[in-house]
Amino acid sequence: MPSYVIGIDYGTNSVRTLIVDCADGGEIATATYDYPTGHQGVVLDPSDHHLARQHPADYLAGLEQSVTAALAAADQQTGFSTDRVIGIGVDTTGSTPLPVDAANVPLALHERWAREPAAMAWLWKDHTAAAEAARITALAAQHRPRYLARIGGTYSSEWFWSKIWHCLKTAPEVFAAAHSWVELADFIPAVLAGVQDPAAIRRGVCAAGHKAMYSDAWEGLPDADFLRLLDRRLADLRERLYDRAYDASVPAGSLCEPWARKLGLPAGLPIAMGAFDAHYGAVGSGVAEGVLVKIIGTSTCDCTVSPLSRELADVPGICGIVEGSILPEHYGLEAGQSAVGDIFRWFVEVVCAGDAALHAELTTAAERLQPGQSGLLALDWNNGNRTILVDPALSGLLLGQTLYTTRAEIYRALIEATAYGARAIIDRLREYGVSIDRVICCGGIAEKNPLLMQIYADVTGCAMQVSARAETCALGAAMAAAVIAGPESGGHADFAAAQQAMTAIAAEEYTPRPAAQAVYEKLYGLYRTLHDAFGGVDTAVDLSRVMKDLIALKEAPSL
Amino acid sequence: MPSYVIGIDYGTNSVRTLIVDCADGGEIATATYDYPTGHQGVVLDPSDHHLARQHPADYLAGLEQSVTAALAAADQQTGFSTDRVIGIGVDTTGSTPLPVDAANVPLALHERWAREPAAMAWLWKDHTAAAEAARITALAAQHRPRYLARIGGTYSSEWFWSKIWHCLKTAPEVFAAAHSWVELADFIPAVLAGVQDPAAIRRGVCAAGHKAMYSDAWEGLPDADFLRLLDRRLADLRERLYDRAYDASVPAGSLCEPWARKLGLPAGLPIAMGAFDAHYGAVGSGVAEGVLVKIIGTSTCDCTVSPLSRELADVPGICGIVEGSILPEHYGLEAGQSAVGDIFRWFVEVVCAGDAALHAELTTAAERLQPGQSGLLALDWNNGNRTILVDPALSGLLLGQTLYTTRAEIYRALIEATAYGARAIIDRLREYGVSIDRVICCGGIAEKNPLLMQIYADVTGCAMQVSARAETCALGAAMAAAVIAGPESGGHADFAAAQQAMTAIAAEEYTPRPAAQAVYEKLYGLYRTLHDAFGGVDTAVDLSRVMKDLIALKEAPSL
Repeated sequence: MPSYVIGIDYGTNSVRTLIVDCADGGEIATATYDYPTGHQGVVLDPSDHHLARQHPADYLAGLEQSVTAALAAADQQTGFSTDRVIGIGVDTTGSTPLPVDAANVPLALHERWAREPAAMAWLWKDHTAAAEAARITALAAQHRPRYLARIGGTYSSEWFWSKIWHCLKTAPEVFAAAHSWVELADFIPAVLAGVQDPAAIRRGVCAAGHKAMYSDAWEGLPDADFLRLLDRRLADLRERLYDRAYDASVPAGSLCEPWARKLGLPAGLPIAMGAFDAHYGAVGSGVAEGVLVKIIGTSTCDCTVSPLSRELADVPGICGIVEGSILPEHYGLEAGQSAVGDIFRWFVEVVCAGDAALHAELTTAAERLQPGQSGLLALDWNNGNRTILVDPALSGLLLGQTLYTTRAEIYRALIEATAYGARAIIDRLREYGVSIDRVICCGGIAEKNPLLMQIYADVTGCAMQVSARAETCALGAAMAAAVIAGPESGGHADFAAAQQAMTAIAAEEYTPRPAAQAVYEKLYGLYRTLHDAFGGVDTAVDLSRVMKDLIALKEAPSL
Repeated sequence: MPSYVIGIDYGTNSVRTLIVDCADGGEIATATYDYPTGHQGVVLDPSDHHLARQHPADYLAGLEQSVTAALAAADQQTGFSTDRVIGIGVDTTGSTPLPVDAANVPLALHERWAREPAAMAWLWKDHTAAAEAARITALAAQHRPRYLARIGGTYSSEWFWSKIWHCLKTAPEVFAAAHSWVELADFIPAVLAGVQDPAAIRRGVCAAGHKAMYSDAWEGLPDADFLRLLDRRLADLRERLYDRAYDASVPAGSLCEPWARKLGLPAGLPIAMGAFDAHYGAVGSGVAEGVLVKIIGTSTCDCTVSPLSRELADVPGICGIVEGSILPEHYGLEAGQSAVGDIFRWFVEVVCAGDAALHAELTTAAERLQPGQSGLLALDWNNGNRTILVDPALSGLLLGQTLYTTRAEIYRALIEATAYGARAIIDRLREYGVSIDRVICCGGIAEKNPLLMQIYADVTGCAMQVSARAETCALGAAMAAAVIAGPESGGHADFAAAQQAMTAIAAEEYTPRPAAQAVYEKLYGLYRTLHDAFGGVDTAVDLSRVMKDLIALKEAPSL
């Protein structure tokens, strides 16, 4: 008898519900709800590019509407029945914390705060808290260096404590009104489970460990003495947060009556622990020891795992190493690039004032170019650098342009820049003993841009595989539900079994071409020279040879 | 009784004849002839961006047609008569040497060579001879350092000997067929004077001194022993070139019968010494001691003079210091930027795929921006660097872009980059004791782009004046003719008198705004950091603070 699981994926602009068959991971139905508030679901401030918020009302409306729509679509499929749904999983963007009252109701659902951005959810890409992040990093470096060791040495403005502290400083009345703060990844499962006390929310170690400096090694969240160095009121808040966070081997709860009625599902269904989209995306793509999953979209998230049974060094400059954050019994390692597709979109839509047709035209023209031919070199830092340098205050660079440089050459140089950034991450992981034998990519760009995939293979020297699943994040969340439900309910015994049954790799694989690799090896060396010089890694470096070397490469015989 | 002089200006795409009144420099008539050969008059090689040639037939057709058309137009003016034309002056691009046979006929006018680019004129912007230029620089540095001292330390691929040597190496049959080589600036006056023996051409010191390492200090051209270090055949060629070159105080010749008939002018008219467009443009703009003239077009040429009576140090990195090259009794100093308008054109037409309307739109949007606001910094090296670094193998750089950077911001950053380049030249001249009290700009961009002029004033801290004359190069050539004709014929006694009578400054002047100056002072410091790091001036420099400083400036309160 077939069994089904539901994965609910909270993205930046919409929420998508996916219903899959536990036996083979096949998609039964899907439905998307676009957030109505703000610009494509994001509340912006015209006077501050750093601000990005979302309205919690959109999350709740999207939960009900996308799940019911997906179930309605599934009902059209032969054999499907809501009785055979065995669990629900949730993944979300993050760190996306939101302030809630003592009844776990988001502040922004109160009329008083409905239009106050500080009372909404602080979307992952909100960068208003740069000063707070720098201060947290400095204080931790001085007083609690161990807090930094596993998050790459730098606490980010995108993360939990930076945002809450910024709220405290800039919107103290909101901070004062908040009983607690909850990551979206924990909030949605808690809503489904009907949790009405923030202290009773079962929090996931994914958000806690990667974004809130949580670790079992130091008994949970940063200690109160440390938080007092930031602000006494943050130490007070700590009392109302949580002592322990959990990996996906335990459920977040079970479906409460009110939401069971809203969704038309049986009450009591197990709800998997919520996690970040990229982490469940890695699960849904087939992450395992030796397998790096790259989720390539507007930015990238690169995930891999390493068994807890093996010693693992701190890896400086990667976003985080957290026990159990991706798979139980494994360290979850997360790295990423702060802009990939966003850079191409910026160039095509803003600089060239073009559209999808121009994307296609430039891709075709860029495919005809050989590595090194344009004489261009770019840094992929238009949105800062997330891995290795971990510095949002870096910016883009394009170098080597002449009076003859074409749009297609620039477009290709920007793709290449992101490939160099991807390689820097792989090199760094390997340098610290993390094995990477295979790379599996997912996301729209991986599926639709063979040029980019080939360049990534040539630059990294790794064969690039692509997930055959369109919705790996929602699939991973659904797989977590299948594992929580267990084989007795028609699910799976563990994640290895779930991955074996439910994930799939596309037939086409991109393998490195030796001639291109040789040229990219030189270009990558130049990229590192700029990277290290502009990133402050080298404190004394003569950059004068960079342009000459580029010109020499440009004039070298083509492949 | 009025008197008139003719100035003939050979540009990159066309030749223009200007007829002016000697009394006040007023324009009587003008006519332009567009070169028909190649792309907008330039013969290109699709497989080699460095190649740029022109067909001598275009020069001769343009000479006849533009002069006769201008005279026909002048004949419509009350009081004008060809009898009252008292002289002809010529300016041209350069270094633009062409190979000629023993009768001073350009090789390309022979059927055999008519389609051979090496037999045509080697246009100033031909960069095929980079290797030869580097070798000449190295040999001179080792064996004849004095040859380099007054040309800024580096012999250019754009110049006379580099091009001829490259012809020898790559088209030896053309080199062998050439009896001599003549700069276009000397060739046209020789044609008008009916000179049929290259050895009898009276060569101008402007081209000789700036481009062929000619100096009276070492008895003319580079000595035969030195040229033998390059190639024995260049030493042989030296015998067929010239021993002496002249400043504008002597005539190039007088109008021969055949060309008098073709043009409808009296035979015997004095012909002024030919010189480069920028040099006569400086004369026509009012160059004098303490006055820097900037001719701003696709590239810039910056000219000033210093009296021979005063000691003048070598100025490293400027294009040349030549006795009498601009005004008799003065050192002529030439510097320049290898691309200015060309960079804006590239960005608007190539990157943005726009036209003149987009230029205007971006200018309007860029005017609304404050200095430092975009967070962008660019180097103006898309066509290499002509002054200070003297290195064609440098390329463009744009830094500081984010996902929000607009076209208008980039456009303004490119204007600013050229302003920083302009300031670097002024600073360098002053550093070596050349006084600059006033800056006069001319050329289409100076006349039509107030935004650029204001930025130049703010960045350099110098008030920017603009010549009121539209055709300063042709005017300067015409003024040289008025001086050669002398007051007895209705001309002028000397250049000072001619400038007093015939040049004019526009009423509108651009003065530095202190608040903008303060921001640009910081940005210029960052530009110099990049300039020195990428130009190889600093051999050990940490560039990591550049982006931070830019962001700090970006977020500083606007003016």
